[in-house]
Amino acid sequence: MRQWIQKKGSVYGKIPYHRRNDLIGAYAQTDVKGERMLRPGQQPDPDQYLHVVERRTDGIIVTGCKVHITQASVADEIIVVPTRSLGPDEADYAVAFAVPSDWDGVTQVIHPNNMRKREHYKRGFDFGGVDSYVIFDNVFVPWERVFLCGEYQHGGLCALLFALFHRHSYSGCKPAIGDVTLGMAALAAEVNGIDKTPHVREKLSKIIQISELGYAAGFTASEMGKPEIYIPGKGQVPYVPGAYIPNSIYCNVGRCLTGEWVFHEQEILCDIAGGMPATFPYEQDLTNSDLKGYLEKYLKRNSKMSMDDQIKFWLYLSDLTVSSLAGTLNYASYHGGGSPIMEQQSRIILEVNSNISEENLKDNDKD
Amino acid sequence: MRQWIQKKGSVYGKIPYHRRNDLIGAYAQTDVKGERMLRPGQQPDPDQYLHVVERRTDGIIVTGCKVHITQASVADEIIVVPTRSLGPDEADYAVAFAVPSDWDGVTQVIHPNNMRKREHYKRGFDFGGVDSYVIFDNVFVPWERVFLCGEYQHGGLCALLFALFHRHSYSGCKPAIGDVTLGMAALAAEVNGIDKTPHVREKLSKIIQISELGYAAGFTASEMGKPEIYIPGKGQVPYVPGAYIPNSIYCNVGRCLTGEWVFHEQEILCDIAGGMPATFPYEQDLTNSDLKGYLEKYLKRNSKMSMDDQIKFWLYLSDLTVSSLAGTLNYASYHGGGSPIMEQQSRIILEVNSNISEENLKDNDKD
Amino acid sequence: MRQWIQKKGSVYGKIPYHRRNDLIGAYAQTDVKGERMLRPGQQPDPDQYLHVVERRTDGIIVTGCKVHITQASVADEIIVVPTRSLGPDEADYAVAFAVPSDWDGVTQVIHPNNMRKREHYKRGFDFGGVDSYVIFDNVFVPWERVFLCGEYQHGGLCALLFALFHRHSYSGCKPAIGDVTLGMAALAAEVNGIDKTPHVREKLSKIIQISELGYAAGFTASEMGKPEIYIPGKGQVPYVPGAYIPNSIYCNVGRCLTGEWVFHEQEILCDIAGGMPATFPYEQDLTNSDLKGYLEKYLKRNSKMSMDDQIKFWLYLSDLTVSSLAGTLNYASYHGGGSPIMEQQSRIILEVNSNISEENLKDNDKD
Amino acid sequence: MRQWIQKKGSVYGKIPYHRRNDLIGAYAQTDVKGERMLRPGQQPDPDQYLHVVERRTDGIIVTGCKVHITQASVADEIIVVPTRSLGPDEADYAVAFAVPSDWDGVTQVIHPNNMRKREHYKRGFDFGGVDSYVIFDNVFVPWERVFLCGEYQHGGLCALLFALFHRHSYSGCKPAIGDVTLGMAALAAEVNGIDKTPHVREKLSKIIQISELGYAAGFTASEMGKPEIYIPGKGQVPYVPGAYIPNSIYCNVGRCLTGEWVFHEQEILCDIAGGMPATFPYEQDLTNSDLKGYLEKYLKRNSKMSMDDQIKFWLYLSDLTVSSLAGTLNYASYHGGGSPIMEQQSRIILEVNSNISEENLKDNDKD
Repeated sequence: MRQWIQKKGSVYGKIPYHRRNDLIGAYAQTDVKGERMLRPGQQPDPDQYLHVVERRTDGIIVTGCKVHITQASVADEIIVVPTRSLGPDEADYAVAFAVPSDWDGVTQVIHPNNMRKREHYKRGFDFGGVDSYVIFDNVFVPWERVFLCGEYQHGGLCALLFALFHRHSYSGCKPAIGDVTLGMAALAAEVNGIDKTPHVREKLSKIIQISELGYAAGFTASEMGKPEIYIPGKGQVPYVPGAYIPNSIYCNVGRCLTGEWVFHEQEILCDIAGGMPATFPYEQDLTNSDLKGYLEKYLKRNSKMSMDDQIKFWLYLSDLTVSSLAGTLNYASYHGGGSPIMEQQSRIILEVNSNISEENLKDNDKD
Repeated sequence: MRQWIQKKGSVYGKIPYHRRNDLIGAYAQTDVKGERMLRPGQQPDPDQYLHVVERRTDGIIVTGCKVHITQASVADEIIVVPTRSLGPDEADYAVAFAVPSDWDGVTQVIHPNNMRKREHYKRGFDFGGVDSYVIFDNVFVPWERVFLCGEYQHGGLCALLFALFHRHSYSGCKPAIGDVTLGMAALAAEVNGIDKTPHVREKLSKIIQISELGYAAGFTASEMGKPEIYIPGKGQVPYVPGAYIPNSIYCNVGRCLTGEWVFHEQEILCDIAGGMPATFPYEQDLTNSDLKGYLEKYLKRNSKMSMDDQIKFWLYLSDLTVSSLAGTLNYASYHGGGSPIMEQQSRIILEVNSNISEENLKDNDKD
Repeated sequence: MRQWIQKKGSVYGKIPYHRRNDLIGAYAQTDVKGERMLRPGQQPDPDQYLHVVERRTDGIIVTGCKVHITQASVADEIIVVPTRSLGPDEADYAVAFAVPSDWDGVTQVIHPNNMRKREHYKRGFDFGGVDSYVIFDNVFVPWERVFLCGEYQHGGLCALLFALFHRHSYSGCKPAIGDVTLGMAALAAEVNGIDKTPHVREKLSKIIQISELGYAAGFTASEMGKPEIYIPGKGQVPYVPGAYIPNSIYCNVGRCLTGEWVFHEQEILCDIAGGMPATFPYEQDLTNSDLKGYLEKYLKRNSKMSMDDQIKFWLYLSDLTVSSLAGTLNYASYHGGGSPIMEQQSRIILEVNSNISEENLKDNDKD
Repeated sequence: MRQWIQKKGSVYGKIPYHRRNDLIGAYAQTDVKGERMLRPGQQPDPDQYLHVVERRTDGIIVTGCKVHITQASVADEIIVVPTRSLGPDEADYAVAFAVPSDWDGVTQVIHPNNMRKREHYKRGFDFGGVDSYVIFDNVFVPWERVFLCGEYQHGGLCALLFALFHRHSYSGCKPAIGDVTLGMAALAAEVNGIDKTPHVREKLSKIIQISELGYAAGFTASEMGKPEIYIPGKGQVPYVPGAYIPNSIYCNVGRCLTGEWVFHEQEILCDIAGGMPATFPYEQDLTNSDLKGYLEKYLKRNSKMSMDDQIKFWLYLSDLTVSSLAGTLNYASYHGGGSPIMEQQSRIILEVNSNISEENLKDNDKD
């Protein structure tokens, strides 16, 4: 690996660049893929996978579109890697590079998701998100920003490395989301006065179980990580950038488990909350002087908690369960870093073959 | 039962009234319930369950609040029934009646859910919904509109009859929703070009299985229905209105199964669709002349379907999966007519004791 | 269909034969199948699917082996049908006939399963079972006992009809087994003194739900049955024997559900029973005069039930859960009539194509 | 803790005793428990929990019965600990000690489980198991063998420590059993020629997922272990024997997950194997010269594997799935170290209260 990095004179060897300049990068991996049953080199429209259209002395020209790229529109740089393993006739698709997000010829079509503004019952923090279609239309990339160009045999490795670290990061991310879910479910039980009910306790313990198992998988993947990597044809070799590669089995089983439970956890929240998140009055009614008395009387469920706190609780629970952002986050948690079906497939491939080539079977990545 | 109906001179015997005048009624059952572990008669605030506050010669005065009442704000009349079985000291809570939706003293706080308007890619039909908190503040109800007043021993029966018919109606409603889900999932697979993939076929067959089992349960409940009803202390007696009572075991098992699968079906849709519904461009971008070319090129997934159809498909799938209305409908499908946990509890009570008293264990009804 | 029946002068038209002579027939369908990925006509050893090896004026000669044939060794006659749909070059495999179970050239290798005899704590009835490998080694079958011979286009129909009726019969059989399971689980809870525990009630209600849904599916399949059948190329035609064909969708979804729950129900039994079935003392110790006092003191769990009844209960529960016969019955309930994976595949094929050809994807039938 | 150990002059401080003499100990925890809803001190028969009946100058006299004690009849010593936390009026039940397995007054009623002997197709190793009811009838225990006597406040701690280490050991034990299950399932797929079938691969990956998550939980519990322990009223104090206490959250979630999957894994084996384990011919038929030819012809499924290996494979798979020992092992794997329902309850108690008192809710321990 060292070889091609040096040959290209890539910025890859100067990793501190991002850190030194305090830059945020957004990884762009998933291509639009066109006809799913055809490989990149077989597509009627060659742009369905991002590829090199011209090699020049000062750099390369690329065309294509990367999709579902979270936060790309607010990142400093976009780091492009291949989607999948590639064959000898697909060398033009073996391309990786980094460009600033507002680089010439890059167009982003964004899908922002923000919460409805609140005037009276303000949120502690306003969360939201934005995903991009990042379109490259004959974009020039100078050689010093190119990491991979034509070395098809490393396409799968590049693809997998991103997926592997992404899956590993989920073992910190998803248990944290799980703790928010757990806290909201436990609080819903308390507000509803059913926190001692056995079926509620069993459901809360399920959320704990999934989060802690996901965390344990990530912990174990870290502890068993190695400063080397498998290169087809060369076996385990030291990993140049000096980073540890987390154990792929544990990254996969942890990410798969927490992905499989995304909708179950929503079901548990729904089960414990009852109909409240779906029918709770809007802020304008809650603060309307004619209705305020009625609503505070009839919305009160727990005499030990202030009405203001109860109202804020239900509004926030609605944000997390029946808002458009909530629906979008379910998709992100389910598909981000690879969908459960992909971990099931890749896991066994990795296990049995002890190598890292992986087929992206379908476009259900949401980065 | 005939006895108390006749004694009160109720309009209950004149059922054709609604039909003759082509009226739509909304059933209002679920009370706010206050402290969940206390019975209606033990609440610090007696209004937490709707009740009679005064009996007059021309009628009664009632106070309380019914929640999660779907379509109440657009119905002609609201039909109030008790939430649960009642004891001898809770006679004031044994009250059932019908009033027009805009009756004096009735206030509705509504939670409407409508889809975002579309200008160019119009929907075939614009669906939406509205739920109400229906507040009764010292409302007068004339005797001819009162069906039950003080006969506490019939409280549970009234409550259960509504729930029973509601659950039965789900065996027609939910399979129909399931068919829409199935169609959208199958179409997503086709657009994505993965309709022959085995795991996709298995997931589609799961939706078929659940829908058809729910339908079979309702079909069997109908076929085994009887024109009689169980009255505690009297056993099976003819049911006065002449209607058939569907078999309660089959109503329960069918409604429970389809309720348990609401979030699983959303998971299947998510699994087959991939990230598209969550990041699909907004209509303004799709029709923007600078972007239209790019988007039609990169959104195309199936060369046999027109781009217009593919765009309309993804927009509609987003409506069904990541919109605020979609989140709300999940809650309605999960809790409406009684949550899975309630069918599990009531089912076994009914089976073992052969009677119909039922405890509403928690407020997870969304009517 | 009428045509070939008449042409062959088959006994098929004289259905009363079995009834008139009070004969019990065992259907033999599943072939050994050899290489699973090859069709019957492609097998290196042509006998891996039972087939016609010679046609004579007085009858035919057949060779092959049918497996997992329950009760074949105690049946009066064995009725052979094809395993699957067949092509024009597989006419020799399109063969159906009936012979007495001890017919010349028929060898049965049996796998009997009986309970360990008990001397003191006798069972109310001694149940058991026996399955056969039924081997046909150049067996002569006279024409009057041949139902199908060479009409390859009816192979799939014959195969499916048996599967369909088998699946339908499960909607009576499996709910009955489910009721035994339910009764034993409820009794285990009572003996253990945990029958009021919520998680136990929830688990009992699950068994009820599955059994009743399986029954409802069968009930609906019967009610929607038709006295006609689909013949490829001819559409719906009257079914000659005059029997009703149950609706295949409902047969499939019911059988699939109950099959999927076989091991879950065993888990529920295990969960409620605790360790008792696995470690319960043997009969010789229970009746040993030195130990009897100790054991009656320490095995007593419910003071309202006689020790004799408690001992008989646990011995019977061990029979149903940890005996060799119990293990075998799980396999029979899971695979008999077609495994869940087959209903999932066939269901969707049937739904989408509206025809009845069905591939037996793997040998997981246990008739 | 050091205090009471020294006061009693216990052998507990001389841990090397077992190691020095190469002794195997069997922990005996679970009492018969009599009326489940009553505490030890409330039982009509005080012997339903093992307790001290007399304190003498040279030792104590104990009576009671410990159940489901695996390998107790072949162990050198039996180590008795309390089942649960105890109150001040239950000091006689706070008793822990060790005695040789054949000590005066100790009677074991055993439930052995061994495989049926094989003459021709011998097993590589003959496995089996034995569980005991260990009955103590006024047994004398000298003071130097007593670890706990009357210190009721340590009852729960003793109980939990055994459970904790037991659960932790499962994170090594169960993944190993899971690997055997995985290997047999993969081999069954290969023999059946369906190892490339997608649903088979998905099911194999499920077994991998569960085993690896169980292992990761145990690994993390070890890494996060501490050389201290929580004593009610004193907080975290150094743990005298010098051993590390594994993290209880991860012990619980891992053991719970693998316990919940015991029957699912059996279902996967059943699904992939098909009917073979349930109907496979007995050894006497396989070696019978009249049948051998037939059976080798019709049992052959994979032309690349010798018939002897295929026969040995199916016989061993039958041992693991439909034998009496297989049924018993399912119970051991499900309940041993605490049933899933107990980890669900204890987990959340531990999490929320940060202490270690735990109620044994029901007798579903199979040690």
